[in-house]
Amino acid sequence: MPPLTPPHVGTVPGSLSQRAHWAGGPGAISLLMAKTLARPDLISLAAGFADYESLPVEPTGLALDRIWSDGALVRAALQYGTTIGYPPLREAILDRMLQADHATAADLRISLDQVVLTAGSNQLLYLVGDVLLDPGDIVLCGSPSYFVYLATLANLGGRTVGVATDANGLMPEAVDEELARLEARGELPRVKAVYVTSYYDNPTGSTLPEDRRAALVEIVQRWSRRQRIYLIEDAAYRELRYYGEDVPSLRSFDPAGDTVVAVGSFSKSYSPGVRVGWGILPERLLGPVLAEKGNLDFGSPSFNQVLMATVLREGLYEGHVARLREGYRVKVDAILAAAEEFLSPIRGVSWIRPAGGLYLWLRLPEGIDTGLAGPLFSRAVDEGVLYVPGQDCFPREGCPREKNHLRLSFGIQCAESIRRGMQALGRAVSATL
Amino acid sequence: MPPLTPPHVGTVPGSLSQRAHWAGGPGAISLLMAKTLARPDLISLAAGFADYESLPVEPTGLALDRIWSDGALVRAALQYGTTIGYPPLREAILDRMLQADHATAADLRISLDQVVLTAGSNQLLYLVGDVLLDPGDIVLCGSPSYFVYLATLANLGGRTVGVATDANGLMPEAVDEELARLEARGELPRVKAVYVTSYYDNPTGSTLPEDRRAALVEIVQRWSRRQRIYLIEDAAYRELRYYGEDVPSLRSFDPAGDTVVAVGSFSKSYSPGVRVGWGILPERLLGPVLAEKGNLDFGSPSFNQVLMATVLREGLYEGHVARLREGYRVKVDAILAAAEEFLSPIRGVSWIRPAGGLYLWLRLPEGIDTGLAGPLFSRAVDEGVLYVPGQDCFPREGCPREKNHLRLSFGIQCAESIRRGMQALGRAVSATL
Repeated sequence: MPPLTPPHVGTVPGSLSQRAHWAGGPGAISLLMAKTLARPDLISLAAGFADYESLPVEPTGLALDRIWSDGALVRAALQYGTTIGYPPLREAILDRMLQADHATAADLRISLDQVVLTAGSNQLLYLVGDVLLDPGDIVLCGSPSYFVYLATLANLGGRTVGVATDANGLMPEAVDEELARLEARGELPRVKAVYVTSYYDNPTGSTLPEDRRAALVEIVQRWSRRQRIYLIEDAAYRELRYYGEDVPSLRSFDPAGDTVVAVGSFSKSYSPGVRVGWGILPERLLGPVLAEKGNLDFGSPSFNQVLMATVLREGLYEGHVARLREGYRVKVDAILAAAEEFLSPIRGVSWIRPAGGLYLWLRLPEGIDTGLAGPLFSRAVDEGVLYVPGQDCFPREGCPREKNHLRLSFGIQCAESIRRGMQALGRAVSATL
Repeated sequence: MPPLTPPHVGTVPGSLSQRAHWAGGPGAISLLMAKTLARPDLISLAAGFADYESLPVEPTGLALDRIWSDGALVRAALQYGTTIGYPPLREAILDRMLQADHATAADLRISLDQVVLTAGSNQLLYLVGDVLLDPGDIVLCGSPSYFVYLATLANLGGRTVGVATDANGLMPEAVDEELARLEARGELPRVKAVYVTSYYDNPTGSTLPEDRRAALVEIVQRWSRRQRIYLIEDAAYRELRYYGEDVPSLRSFDPAGDTVVAVGSFSKSYSPGVRVGWGILPERLLGPVLAEKGNLDFGSPSFNQVLMATVLREGLYEGHVARLREGYRVKVDAILAAAEEFLSPIRGVSWIRPAGGLYLWLRLPEGIDTGLAGPLFSRAVDEGVLYVPGQDCFPREGCPREKNHLRLSFGIQCAESIRRGMQALGRAVSATL
């Protein structure tokens, strides 16, 4: 049975807080970035950055011209805003979400007051974790999951418990079973949330089908006996769809609106440098999240919010996303073709076919350790390619951490570099068998 | 003896975290803002906003043009940055600070690696609190102090202990005595920091003279026996000097650089909407703060950082700050003249004469309660003026909370409105005697 207290309790030297110790070190990604800077010849299939060529230079320039031609707008951009964020942008975000879900605000019992803006959706995820978790509290996550949020939850002293996933993402019956197991251990009261990236998951690329969405909401509500268990829906990649149809959000399966925390971002679909994210929160979390945000930074920069509101209002967003999708579709095709060409001949290699997003999740033969200290990683660097080791994406408890996966991002490289990178990876894997 | 545990421990209902309960409610300022919105005819001397007329519309427009004329710059603005922040801006900040302090990086043992950017300096203050404080840990603060940071520290479960101040700010001997008192109680190991707004304090307007700076650094270092006590220097208002000479920073009295956390911001001197703040951190705090920031938001928006770097590099900053100083000097003259005219005739009223910043701290006759629920506040609203009640600016322990102060901000109103507001306040005070 795992300990109720988080790791490192009682081992704090010096004058740092417990949380500072839980925060961990710079992490694998920082090490990877240092590696990238030191070896500019490497083809990085590691970072989840946006494509440099597709950054919205023109639409952002037009939006800024528009702002500078309107005295009230430019002053709103340069002055303090409110903690919850710029109303016209919150309105536009809500409208877009309702439109995508073919729903009205009344259908989903959402009011504008529940839409909170942050500088990137990660801050929203942090705030929700902070108002829900005491040290030792539990969040159920897919095994694997978005590794930055796993680190954030650990930083808060939370326990992450991994639940089985397949090519369609988090398995509802596995969530149900894990909750039953936790109840049998008397740990159900510690479970505060289930976290899921519902569209084109980071790292697996999978998307939850409708039936799983409905089942997840039902399961989470059914187990909310002692206290409300929230379902945190990270929809950061929703707009990056290259194939198939959009699926209604998890939030749309929770018409009462007291279970799902809907989280979104313009970082992936527009600009990571402008960095505007949001949450649509259940009523009960709204006050606590805003109070914490008030203490943290009393509101994110209004400049960025006025800018995004103008981009949306002036109709500059849709065209950009359409171009982005077109560009990334070429790249996902390139990485899938290259995987077929260079990796499918190797026995024991498989992957999940993503319909959107930025990632390809690759399974290698059992026994290959993809870690930074393992033989594959250094061989891959020698061959000229970088990837993210999959083992950092596994929650600390629950499903065992698997060592033979890696995450590839096709966002930043051109199709030709993707092909060469995959060829290099194929050579490295073959050499490591 | 005050309890070692923070308030509310053991009284947590529902599924929120302990921290969510410590975060408190929306606070006096939110209520004041709601009041302002509901009664646009009121003259607000409450909010510490920047002057609308003096927002940097032109220099920001020029900087954006410059960015858009340089492909590399515009891509840096729209792409992800690093957690620590954009190097050219960090360099410019360090250069400016060293210049102001007539020191070299070698004199003060500062390297560029120690300069961390955040979206507003409040986030830096939050992060430092978070990596230092466990629930029940203590920060010594002036009595009164910047109320947002008092709320932030309470949110973290910290205890704020108030130390006496006078017209020259925090009194070093009072800090010394309080530390001796805490040691006698066995609580010295819980003291993690002393917090001070060293220039044109919020709320008192006072500035620490050089001898107090040297004494404070010496005292804090002398009491760092069991663990390092940090001296957090909030220099957000340093550039807003209207009278007298600049004083070297507290950091310049700590040449080894292991005691002072130097915090600054462009929110007050340039634009609160662009919202770029920074910290120059002791080596030992650097890793922990960056790890936490990585988990919180993995870096503040690069757009704002590239923008501020360009404003500085293109020489657009100095002129703006000079104009701002000129405008605010007229206003501080106006509020001081109005205080003389309308308040000095009332016995028992006094104030601290600010040489910079945005605030006038007013002491009213004993027995007048300036609180939101008290008779003065509603009378002031009836007379047409808003202020910030002083009682929210007092730490929870130490020096007793005084009820007969209020904070006035002269930032946002024109000289004529300031005069009318002060006249209204004079009427309200007279009527409440």
